[in-house]
Amino acid sequence: MNAEYFLDRGKELVRLLKSRKVHSFLSKNPSLIFHLTGLHETPGYLLVLNGEVRFVTDRRFQKEAAEIKHFISSDIFTNSIVTYLKPLRKEFKQPAIEYGRVTHAEYLSLSESLKCTFTDAGDAVNQFLSVTDGLQLDSFIRAADVTSELFNYCKKVFDENLAITEKELAYELQSILVRNAAQKYSFEPIIAADENSAKPHHTPSDRNIQDCKVLLVDLGVIYSGICSDVTRTYIRNHPKAGRIEKIVHNGFKRVLGKVNAGVKVSELAQMWKAELEKVNMTHNFTHALGHGLGYEVHQIPRISEYSKETLKENQIITLEPALYFENEFGYRYECDILVTKDSGINLTVF
Amino acid sequence: MNAEYFLDRGKELVRLLKSRKVHSFLSKNPSLIFHLTGLHETPGYLLVLNGEVRFVTDRRFQKEAAEIKHFISSDIFTNSIVTYLKPLRKEFKQPAIEYGRVTHAEYLSLSESLKCTFTDAGDAVNQFLSVTDGLQLDSFIRAADVTSELFNYCKKVFDENLAITEKELAYELQSILVRNAAQKYSFEPIIAADENSAKPHHTPSDRNIQDCKVLLVDLGVIYSGICSDVTRTYIRNHPKAGRIEKIVHNGFKRVLGKVNAGVKVSELAQMWKAELEKVNMTHNFTHALGHGLGYEVHQIPRISEYSKETLKENQIITLEPALYFENEFGYRYECDILVTKDSGINLTVF
Repeated sequence: MNAEYFLDRGKELVRLLKSRKVHSFLSKNPSLIFHLTGLHETPGYLLVLNGEVRFVTDRRFQKEAAEIKHFISSDIFTNSIVTYLKPLRKEFKQPAIEYGRVTHAEYLSLSESLKCTFTDAGDAVNQFLSVTDGLQLDSFIRAADVTSELFNYCKKVFDENLAITEKELAYELQSILVRNAAQKYSFEPIIAADENSAKPHHTPSDRNIQDCKVLLVDLGVIYSGICSDVTRTYIRNHPKAGRIEKIVHNGFKRVLGKVNAGVKVSELAQMWKAELEKVNMTHNFTHALGHGLGYEVHQIPRISEYSKETLKENQIITLEPALYFENEFGYRYECDILVTKDSGINLTVF
Repeated sequence: MNAEYFLDRGKELVRLLKSRKVHSFLSKNPSLIFHLTGLHETPGYLLVLNGEVRFVTDRRFQKEAAEIKHFISSDIFTNSIVTYLKPLRKEFKQPAIEYGRVTHAEYLSLSESLKCTFTDAGDAVNQFLSVTDGLQLDSFIRAADVTSELFNYCKKVFDENLAITEKELAYELQSILVRNAAQKYSFEPIIAADENSAKPHHTPSDRNIQDCKVLLVDLGVIYSGICSDVTRTYIRNHPKAGRIEKIVHNGFKRVLGKVNAGVKVSELAQMWKAELEKVNMTHNFTHALGHGLGYEVHQIPRISEYSKETLKENQIITLEPALYFENEFGYRYECDILVTKDSGINLTVF
């Protein structure tokens, strides 16, 4: 039953905040609002006060707010959130907001009007949202399914060597996405032929991909709010790219074999670095090895050798080993991995 | 020549900031970056220092940065923007950022690391971006053109009384959008049949629109970064909606007749309010009369009776008079208007 998920989520947030000595909390984080209320694209505020969670919005969304059935109460402010909060000010006990989610202007407005010092609950919320439950996993599996459809199409285009530009392919893929009822891309897709693939963040151009020897496609979709993020690189008649493909895939397998709840993410990054050192290619890899995935396409943990985090059960992360050769080509392989107690399950085997 | 537009934009920003006694300025506002560099979806910072504008990004985007030809220099930071700025600290004179564009966390990081007090240049930047030049107007006209295609399709679906759900229609329209090479919707479209149209911000549902008597469609597209935002309401066999349609369209015409550079936006809102008072329907209108349009779908000026702004030449604004009858229907008519010295030109006559 979906409602139980929502009930558990609210309780867990209150518990987590309490454990960090936060007794009141205000948030306009859309991911957190969606997670606790099921409301999508509905601006408003979550207010944790006296152990309860309330959703507060303006009268444009009163109908949506009234329809929340998930054991969270809702309320409407008529003027602004500040005037709504003022009468409740005395109930605020060790209040917190997310420093990384409010603008400095909003911070000033809230703390000056309410005469409050807010601490930062950003880390607690990020930890909370980094672990998925069954409802989110269902959405992720649908997202992965739509993503695989898009890559089937890319492979077909590459195998049949069709005349199409990078930009046109991005449009074609978006049509498939729309027909498959995923909401939208989780980020602007990267479609990069030959030397364009050497740029990790290439924007699809008017370059025709016909007769290219390397085609890198990095894209993700949003399904019921949950993001996928996958890269495949297609190659043909390119001996160097063939060698690089083997290095990247072997590295991927070694790192994946090390994934489990409790492992330090820095160890994963170091393992990939060791692979690169063997072939003297450390400077051909220019980004993090991966990142958490959920309502946002980049969330904690950041998988880098400098990161202090450990993997948690039921996190979804990407692993994206890659090698780039300027003005030549790049090869990246990115999968989405569910972290379990003892292993990592590749949810994007296609 | 496009490059001249970019040159003028950079000079104008420096001039505007100087006139407000701001001599150094740091911004990561994507709209401002696109406006000054032509770079789309390229994270980085604009730095105004000693009368010059520089774009600073990390090495993932060094190729893009190197390709800026528009008389703006570029630079790469290797660690973080803070470490990049530290050696330049002594050159900072009356530095500013946009309080409404940096998070509180970023504000703390910048001001603590650089030991600087930043003032707020948000208002200057918003004013700067609220006035369009010829290059932006070209993009807007293309955006309006794609938007009219989408509404042609809606009208056809309504006139032919096809069996299709609100959600499916949103998907169909997105396919047309993609084929027309507009980037994407400027916001999640509102497609609302019968009583759903009474909610100003209805999300497309699984409701079939066949045989509906009122169909409200509110959508916009982004073309070369510029947003459109249009609403049409289709009705049939609904005498009350027919009467309301006349009130809304008459009000629209009266307000449009009043638009020119220099008019107070509060006067426009009051004029519409006076129309509503005549028919005793003030409480059936629940949002602002309109808003500025540009790189963002909601920007200054906000057209409300409480607003203190005056219209400026070459602003693009929406006018969206509407009337809502709970559990019955809503009727909204929204057009995008170019403000000229003497009048308002409706750019969305379709």
